[in-house]
Amino acid sequence: MPSYSAPTKDLQFVLHDLLKVTASDIPGYADLEPDFTSAILEEAGKLTSEVLAPLNTVGDHEGCRLENGVVYTPTGFKEAFEQVKEGGWTGLDMPEQYGGQNMPQVIGSAVAEMFSSSNMAFTMYQGLTHGAAAAILAHGTDLQKDTYLPNMVTCHWTGTMNLTEPHCGTDLGLMRTKAAQQGDGSYKISGQKIFISAGEHDMADNIIHLVLAKIEGGPEGIKGVSLFIVPKFMVNEDGSLGERNGVSVGSIEEKMGIHGNSTCVMNYDEATGYLLGEEHKGMRAMFTMMNEARLGVGMQGLSQAETAYQNAVIYANDRLQGRDVTGAKNPDGPADPLIVHPDIRRSLMDQKSFVEGARAFVLWGATLIDAHHRKGDDDADGLVSLMTPVIKGFLTDQGYDMTVKAQQIYGGHGYIEEWGMSQYTRDARIAMIYEGANGVQALDLVGRKLAQDGGKHVMAFFDLVKNFIKENTDQDEAYVAEFLDPLKAASKDLQAAGMYFMQNGMKNPNNALSGSNDFMHMFGHVCLGLMWAKMGLSAKEALANGATDTAFYETKLATGRYYMARQLPATALHLTRIQSGADTVMALEAANF
Amino acid sequence: MPSYSAPTKDLQFVLHDLLKVTASDIPGYADLEPDFTSAILEEAGKLTSEVLAPLNTVGDHEGCRLENGVVYTPTGFKEAFEQVKEGGWTGLDMPEQYGGQNMPQVIGSAVAEMFSSSNMAFTMYQGLTHGAAAAILAHGTDLQKDTYLPNMVTCHWTGTMNLTEPHCGTDLGLMRTKAAQQGDGSYKISGQKIFISAGEHDMADNIIHLVLAKIEGGPEGIKGVSLFIVPKFMVNEDGSLGERNGVSVGSIEEKMGIHGNSTCVMNYDEATGYLLGEEHKGMRAMFTMMNEARLGVGMQGLSQAETAYQNAVIYANDRLQGRDVTGAKNPDGPADPLIVHPDIRRSLMDQKSFVEGARAFVLWGATLIDAHHRKGDDDADGLVSLMTPVIKGFLTDQGYDMTVKAQQIYGGHGYIEEWGMSQYTRDARIAMIYEGANGVQALDLVGRKLAQDGGKHVMAFFDLVKNFIKENTDQDEAYVAEFLDPLKAASKDLQAAGMYFMQNGMKNPNNALSGSNDFMHMFGHVCLGLMWAKMGLSAKEALANGATDTAFYETKLATGRYYMARQLPATALHLTRIQSGADTVMALEAANF
Repeated sequence: MPSYSAPTKDLQFVLHDLLKVTASDIPGYADLEPDFTSAILEEAGKLTSEVLAPLNTVGDHEGCRLENGVVYTPTGFKEAFEQVKEGGWTGLDMPEQYGGQNMPQVIGSAVAEMFSSSNMAFTMYQGLTHGAAAAILAHGTDLQKDTYLPNMVTCHWTGTMNLTEPHCGTDLGLMRTKAAQQGDGSYKISGQKIFISAGEHDMADNIIHLVLAKIEGGPEGIKGVSLFIVPKFMVNEDGSLGERNGVSVGSIEEKMGIHGNSTCVMNYDEATGYLLGEEHKGMRAMFTMMNEARLGVGMQGLSQAETAYQNAVIYANDRLQGRDVTGAKNPDGPADPLIVHPDIRRSLMDQKSFVEGARAFVLWGATLIDAHHRKGDDDADGLVSLMTPVIKGFLTDQGYDMTVKAQQIYGGHGYIEEWGMSQYTRDARIAMIYEGANGVQALDLVGRKLAQDGGKHVMAFFDLVKNFIKENTDQDEAYVAEFLDPLKAASKDLQAAGMYFMQNGMKNPNNALSGSNDFMHMFGHVCLGLMWAKMGLSAKEALANGATDTAFYETKLATGRYYMARQLPATALHLTRIQSGADTVMALEAANF
Repeated sequence: MPSYSAPTKDLQFVLHDLLKVTASDIPGYADLEPDFTSAILEEAGKLTSEVLAPLNTVGDHEGCRLENGVVYTPTGFKEAFEQVKEGGWTGLDMPEQYGGQNMPQVIGSAVAEMFSSSNMAFTMYQGLTHGAAAAILAHGTDLQKDTYLPNMVTCHWTGTMNLTEPHCGTDLGLMRTKAAQQGDGSYKISGQKIFISAGEHDMADNIIHLVLAKIEGGPEGIKGVSLFIVPKFMVNEDGSLGERNGVSVGSIEEKMGIHGNSTCVMNYDEATGYLLGEEHKGMRAMFTMMNEARLGVGMQGLSQAETAYQNAVIYANDRLQGRDVTGAKNPDGPADPLIVHPDIRRSLMDQKSFVEGARAFVLWGATLIDAHHRKGDDDADGLVSLMTPVIKGFLTDQGYDMTVKAQQIYGGHGYIEEWGMSQYTRDARIAMIYEGANGVQALDLVGRKLAQDGGKHVMAFFDLVKNFIKENTDQDEAYVAEFLDPLKAASKDLQAAGMYFMQNGMKNPNNALSGSNDFMHMFGHVCLGLMWAKMGLSAKEALANGATDTAFYETKLATGRYYMARQLPATALHLTRIQSGADTVMALEAANF
């Protein structure tokens, strides 16, 4: 049975040693004293490791059950969700006005990592609610906010997002769900939506569906799509629940993983809906939710890698098999633990250096969001908008690979469900797909984000790396050679790829798009390389300042060195592929595949 | 519902255009005329695509069921297995003396690909029987051969291999299963074995277990391990079945995939067993089976990638989503098919170029085995022994990744079980683990095979690549630039890695072992690069000779170009990692992970 132990110390390191949150001028950050954040993280750690983690395998084994239109969640989920609500964990970074605690996103994200690590399927119920609430917060009328947010912030009501239909996922312009104007400001929504996470369940009094639909008579395609609030139960003027709305669950999907989350086919049969935001501007409103969801999904990649890694370390230390070729490490035992073997270490270091780099990356992204939301920093917004597809695509691709590596360490025991390692890969697999498949993320990055605002944000990113390197060239020789030089080389590769796109994408956009996946990955590596270079510096500083826990900081440095030496050089391969252009990619007639 | 279409034409291309089997002096090869091999492949194609493939999802959904000591295979398996037996497919490359057809392994392998592609879990029942029969053939007495082989070659009796115990998989020296000598030449075997594929089922009259155990009083550790034949039902002198032996199934495992195969815990309770081969030389005898099994598992990696790819192509052509950025390809439809998008093509070309390269690699390996078995070519044996861990490790790692890519093309539909794509990844996952986890393959390659016979075989491989390049430098410029130059560069990387191991592995073996996984992968890439360079040449020749199916050969060339441009350059990254040595890999204390 796998376990989860909250990485409080590592999160504190990122918040305080790396990001130095209390020194930031972002409103609210000055309050984030180490003792304060530690107290929050300790509490979240207790809840997630003791309550949510043990339910992870339960959710996988039992799955959700649909009976007479009611979806039953796995044993224990409902009680655990009550505990989560009571603890106020669902509104951590939501406005106080609606029952939240108004903390910065950076704290919300740190806590969210623990939730997702301990039980991804369970955490999706509140994650989607948070996203739906954010969309209402950004685009709703005051009445809508007052009507829905107080109950959504506390998760007494949960939320969903309804985009996909059987014949369209990415290409939402093809959607068929209709909205008919009723003259009283409301609409009748009719159509079918599929793959709706948390679409129906037994853990909340009401479910607030955000549904994309086309208003009859509106423009064709994506320009005719609007977003609607469709509650499961109508809400009376006094806030009490009224009659059941015309929305029902058609079936729940049998999936490869996240069995604890109910993935529903939702049928809308003249359901009453209310326009959220402007007519025909549904995609804009939905993207508020989607961007948040993408960052959350990137976090899922990291989180599943983290938990899988933790368990792989335990197993590698427990399982006795073979001998260290340089001399027995457990001479009195029948064999040495797996962890003595170089290839096991290679795999564990891959995992460890990814997870810790990704954690820093995600929390840095959260500070950019805070900078935008809390002090109107548009440059920060541009930067995080550029990096959103990287966080989503790179972290979920890599995170999935890491769960496979962790599973591999268990040998045959990794393949049987009894040991629980298969669940991490099966759960992590969806993160590469939903909220925009990773190919769509790469397309968004190369086809849209790179050139956004005249390429201003990607230039800002390059400057950021360049300046960091310049500011630190007078560090000791070893640091420069081990951290800065590899970062410089990788960043140069990334710039060369961008240059290739500029020079060759104009005459044939396929030259850029054929390299989009490679570009997303090399961008991700450079981001993690930057994070490691900075964390290496933070660790050096802590040691120089006489930190007592030298093993912790030295481990950070060693883990960083591993990433720089063994992972970051992947940028060169990605560049080679990109520079080979579109010719070999596009050569075949469709019929010849 | 996924489908499978047998790649007869591609297999014929490898047999005749690439390997030119009829021109070979290997006994039996002259008979392999194109019409003859085509007839076999067509028949095998019919059986696998029409009978076995439709049972693949049935097997996954139903799984095996244990009731009162009897294991029931999924609906339809038993009838299909009868058809396979009746068709004589199980003894294709077995000696006529025991009911086989004495065909070369290269034909056996071509047919085995189809079987494994269409239904991996089903095919394991006969695959393990084949391996067990091969071990008896190589190490059994005449009486043992006469007693067991006729029924095993026809699969009226199936076979198993029993190595793993709960506390040991790789490190078999730790095993506890005991063999007590009975004075009549037989032994009483007692102990528990786990993860026994096809350990018990309802499709054969008898099951012949090959079981590793320690004879009481023998040497400690791996040197005291012997191999035993333990039949489920005792075999009377007249060949009829006698009483039930003391072997029984304890439970069947819940696994991530291959649900159609019964993976059993087997309990041996003073079961009667007969020594196979010599006392305490069990590992040698088992390795006859294991080496064959490893090649078969490598084939599984290829086979799951092949079927998943086939379905991904169908979906990419069917599913309308988005528009080609260079202009609509399906202007009258609501959208263009997925296959117009460069990133979808990038993924499909990754899959296609891997599958076709891997197919050539496996069949080339089979010709080396034939050269050894049929004309006593020890160099061929040395070469295939060197490449066995590469075929097993590289093809299953990559094959798994390809199933993930194929699944990704389906978007959300890839994640729900209804579409069947999840099964390919879940089934393919085991191939990275069993018959020696891939880390163990890499260790075998670097720690053992490289230096075997004074490094003679790896030198022979390098010579083979070098000579091929040298012999073809006068080909046209495009071919040299697109095929030979990349092959030369990759081969140089591989040699540099070998050199690094020699120079640094002596003073610290961890310098070699930390790079073992990278070395296995770069070796695999060079092998596939060599195959593609040769296939490119074959395609060029066919076109020059006026082949009418120009699209087929031009597609081969284009697919080869893709591999050389986008996949083969991975060797440089692997070399960088290898040359970074063991320091960053081994830096941490075990407690600091």
